[in-house]
Amino acid sequence: MELTFLGTSSGAPTMQRNVTGLVLRRGATWDLFDCGEATQHQILRTSLSISKLRRVFISHLHGDHCFGLFGLLGSRSMDGCTEPLTVFGPKGLKPMVETVLELSDTHLNFPLEIRELSEHGERLVEDSSRLGGETIDALPLSHRVTSFGWHIVEADRPGVLDAAAARAAGVPEGPLFGALQRGEAVEVDGGWKVQPKDVLGPTRRGRRLVIGGDNNAPSALFERTGGADLAVHEATFTESVLAKMPNDRGHSTAARVAHAATTHGVRSLVLTHFSARYGAKGSSGQSIDEVRDEARQHFAGPLHLAEDFDRVVVATDGSMVTS
Amino acid sequence: MELTFLGTSSGAPTMQRNVTGLVLRRGATWDLFDCGEATQHQILRTSLSISKLRRVFISHLHGDHCFGLFGLLGSRSMDGCTEPLTVFGPKGLKPMVETVLELSDTHLNFPLEIRELSEHGERLVEDSSRLGGETIDALPLSHRVTSFGWHIVEADRPGVLDAAAARAAGVPEGPLFGALQRGEAVEVDGGWKVQPKDVLGPTRRGRRLVIGGDNNAPSALFERTGGADLAVHEATFTESVLAKMPNDRGHSTAARVAHAATTHGVRSLVLTHFSARYGAKGSSGQSIDEVRDEARQHFAGPLHLAEDFDRVVVATDGSMVTS
Repeated sequence: MELTFLGTSSGAPTMQRNVTGLVLRRGATWDLFDCGEATQHQILRTSLSISKLRRVFISHLHGDHCFGLFGLLGSRSMDGCTEPLTVFGPKGLKPMVETVLELSDTHLNFPLEIRELSEHGERLVEDSSRLGGETIDALPLSHRVTSFGWHIVEADRPGVLDAAAARAAGVPEGPLFGALQRGEAVEVDGGWKVQPKDVLGPTRRGRRLVIGGDNNAPSALFERTGGADLAVHEATFTESVLAKMPNDRGHSTAARVAHAATTHGVRSLVLTHFSARYGAKGSSGQSIDEVRDEARQHFAGPLHLAEDFDRVVVATDGSMVTS
Repeated sequence: MELTFLGTSSGAPTMQRNVTGLVLRRGATWDLFDCGEATQHQILRTSLSISKLRRVFISHLHGDHCFGLFGLLGSRSMDGCTEPLTVFGPKGLKPMVETVLELSDTHLNFPLEIRELSEHGERLVEDSSRLGGETIDALPLSHRVTSFGWHIVEADRPGVLDAAAARAAGVPEGPLFGALQRGEAVEVDGGWKVQPKDVLGPTRRGRRLVIGGDNNAPSALFERTGGADLAVHEATFTESVLAKMPNDRGHSTAARVAHAATTHGVRSLVLTHFSARYGAKGSSGQSIDEVRDEARQHFAGPLHLAEDFDRVVVATDGSMVTS
């Protein structure tokens, strides 16, 4: 599970940060979470192939989260890709995309499915029965318009094979070891059946990932997805900035996200979607370190503030590795 | 008259070239011709202020010429700009922009006028009577969809004042010299009227600029705008590439644009909107020098192949200055 941040700015692009786009890669193909303007330009600057994109998840229809979709679709088609693409998002996504494609005379050479989701959220993928499968839920957030967070839960994996126990049960090393590790019963000489539960350690829990959209109620999201290995959440403001604003415009502060993550047992936290006032190091605006410091006061676990092109891996044991 | 090229690639962005966007600046405010995706990102990398943008001219509705408009409008508003903006373009532009703004809950803090043009072209601006005024015509081109070129003609300026002749006519140096230079009659001691025609050299022709959209009939455009000081035109392909294609997809080759420019007396020629196969120097694709060489065989005058962020000035005498 590798995340690549394509855009980490809220509202409008800056010289250092594009608007929102986040890649999740698990093998040869990849998914995209939000698609702000110039997401396809950012992809050009990675090793990702646009033809390996299979699903797009649009959290909400504000422009900084979806205006890159039209050009991305056109370029994926011009690239010669004929593989189907599914786009999930709130009501309104379908007429928006269809109107733009039609009026711009854009003809796609691949099947495009646009799935508009219930505002109450719904299960999009349920494939947890097989090894390597996963479930994906869209969860409703609290924002100025309908907005979703995404909960991705891998299927649990069988425990580690106890080789000594397997040998003692008469299983020869080789393919039968592999079958047991995959959770299958095997037959040994003499006709005995060896069950996986007899030779495997405790079931290993699949990784749990939360990717939030724009949201001013992180606690409600983390309550529903409690115990996530890693959560990516917007931290548009800090408390000191919010104190001078008439309202939160449907966004979170670093403190509130960090506090919610601690309360609900999030193991590792990645913050993104920063107001443009938090400049890169050395710029004239407020420092991004203010966001980091505020979050750190409320969250003691592994914490990362995303920059464009950062890669964050959720390791097999659920821990966060940044590069 | 200063042009800044924000994007010079056709169809899709490349690492070196964005899709189409061209700035024309004449004083404090500026106009934009086409607005491909990430035009606002390119503007960030110039000294231009988005709040000084007054008019946008969209040649046609293919995505690489207009998908940057939605985000640009939103950012201009978020920037606090309340000055009106007019967008000219083909039929379909208004429902496209309005649908996207409405579904994305984008509220503009400035008055936006979208003017859909007759497919036969029309005069958009007629202001040639006053000094410093200009006329702008939208001219229909030949492409797969309705596409326009833009003909910008400055008002003619009075000839240069012959100071000796003015003195001999009894005009004292000072404000009356200025009035004569502006083309106004003045009264001198004794009640005599001195007419501008008596003391001015021949009228100086205003600059004539042609900015083409996608078009496979450059000759028809240059015939209507004959004698332009400078023409900007797409040269998507070269003849050798076109020979291997089933059809021209509504685009021009370098040879055809250059030949048409020579035939119809274009003084300086700028080519842009190159197929991605013509890479930057040193890349693995075909060289952009192939485009240059082909154009040069048919056009002997000042020739420029645009790169992103190139600035091209049309000097007072109509000549091209590149930087």
